Amino acid sequence: MKVVESRLELQRLSDEERARGQRIALVPTMGALHAGHLSLVDAGRKRADQVWVSIFVNPTQFNEANDFEGYPRELERDLDACRQAGVDIVYAPGVDDVYPQDAQTWVDVETLTLPLCGASRPGHFRGVTTVVAKLFLAAKPHVAVFGQKDFQQLAVIRQMTRDMGFDVEIVGGAIVREPDGVALSSRNVRLGPEARRQAVALVQALDAVEAAAASGERDSGALLALARTHIESAPQARVDYIELRDPDSLETAPETLAAATLLALAVNFTPDPSGEGADVRLIDNRLLSFDRSRATEHHPSGDSQ
Amino acid sequence: MKVVESRLELQRLSDEERARGQRIALVPTMGALHAGHLSLVDAGRKRADQVWVSIFVNPTQFNEANDFEGYPRELERDLDACRQAGVDIVYAPGVDDVYPQDAQTWVDVETLTLPLCGASRPGHFRGVTTVVAKLFLAAKPHVAVFGQKDFQQLAVIRQMTRDMGFDVEIVGGAIVREPDGVALSSRNVRLGPEARRQAVALVQALDAVEAAAASGERDSGALLALARTHIESAPQARVDYIELRDPDSLETAPETLAAATLLALAVNFTPDPSGEGADVRLIDNRLLSFDRSRATEHHPSGDSQ
Repeated sequence: MKVVESRLELQRLSDEERARGQRIALVPTMGALHAGHLSLVDAGRKRADQVWVSIFVNPTQFNEANDFEGYPRELERDLDACRQAGVDIVYAPGVDDVYPQDAQTWVDVETLTLPLCGASRPGHFRGVTTVVAKLFLAAKPHVAVFGQKDFQQLAVIRQMTRDMGFDVEIVGGAIVREPDGVALSSRNVRLGPEARRQAVALVQALDAVEAAAASGERDSGALLALARTHIESAPQARVDYIELRDPDSLETAPETLAAATLLALAVNFTPDPSGEGADVRLIDNRLLSFDRSRATEHHPSGDSQ
Repeated sequence: MKVVESRLELQRLSDEERARGQRIALVPTMGALHAGHLSLVDAGRKRADQVWVSIFVNPTQFNEANDFEGYPRELERDLDACRQAGVDIVYAPGVDDVYPQDAQTWVDVETLTLPLCGASRPGHFRGVTTVVAKLFLAAKPHVAVFGQKDFQQLAVIRQMTRDMGFDVEIVGGAIVREPDGVALSSRNVRLGPEARRQAVALVQALDAVEAAAASGERDSGALLALARTHIESAPQARVDYIELRDPDSLETAPETLAAATLLALAVNFTPDPSGEGADVRLIDNRLLSFDRSRATEHHPSGDSQ
């Protein structure tokens, strides 16, 4: 496995590999790799000859300095995980390689970035789309794989890729969960043990809403209230948003649901019952399928149907 | 010569040519090709195996509907000119190929776009950087050539290319002028005969300032006033801006000039003495070199030194 720190070197390697007919899949990450990331590596390998992983904690997508500084960084462990997963190249640049001195250029998706995480985290998606465009230009992949846990991010990146005309196929990887159902996230390690136990409230809310929908509940307000009850049962949880949205346009779903609808949650956890430490923000989502009364994502302990 | 209307087809061709080791130079144009454009084709050929020209009147960089609608379109004549110039591929897409339905993604350069044409033409440079990024993604050139007449545009595109990490070498082509010194522009054809005669005021202003600088004048105010006198001698001319700027940062030049300085002009012409018709906006510029008392761009009828 090659570890590359320079964009120019990566571009040279990409040109070489592309010239000899190799298909490249890129998995952009911020490191702190877990089984969710490794499932994206597997998804990439199914669609390409080589899997390249980028590891870069992107400063411009953090709207809070605390969150950026506290974000876990463990490059050696990540490189080991990549080696074991059969990754071909890791691109692990320094900040200057991605943002040259006095950089002043941004890639911005206007509408899809307004609600949900975009509303809670000003500038976040501008940072995401800018860095993803740069990573695409650096690695020149044929395929790029992103996790569905960041549902809005995936939608925004699809839009950016289509609008700009990148010839990169965007693949969404299914959410990977802990045995108790909590979605894998690099931020989970920042929860104290009690908050970690309470974090199951997110997936319980998703399961409960999915079950209610499967039983015929079509009323947005009732489903949102049901989700809220579950989240608010966790004493260290504070709701950021609980929303039902059109999965393509991300527009607010109608009062009476009829078509596939995204249920998206963002919850801030106080890491410690004493209230010490910076909040940890967790997100999760599920695509609810009303037309056939079936949900499309199933989590192992889900009890719907 | 191949004429390609589809981005996907162009990307396929680029992949093929790059794989067999061909270097590609792209000359992005809005058509209405004149000798200035063809000099860019020549500059491209010096640096690559193939020259590709894009012809696309980009709607998003026109801040006035009149200007967009009135912009000259003469594709067949342009294709003939490209054939004669030995162009390998012309990319002449429709608007939908560059801006898919509901496109909402923009590439924006923040600081360099604020003064000069950016101040006069809100949104103009956002349209330019967005379309140039898309053209780079479509053609995947090794080199791209832009005219120095649009000095700020060239600076903005260099910045965008560097910031985003496009592996495209940006080349600036010297201004090409009519026998009377007027810079070639697709907009010149929209001037009536009298306004066309008066348009020489721009290059006369540049020449006069260059000569004054060569004679030792270092005072910004005096040089700007000299330029203004020349422009205002043209009855159908109305100054948009006359400015002295740092050629790299585009910051306002100091009161007493010491280093290389850009003199940039934008002038609106009433096309007809009666005042009928939409104004035609002409720009021109010269790089003044104070450190060695020499200007770097020489126009044939220039009388400095």
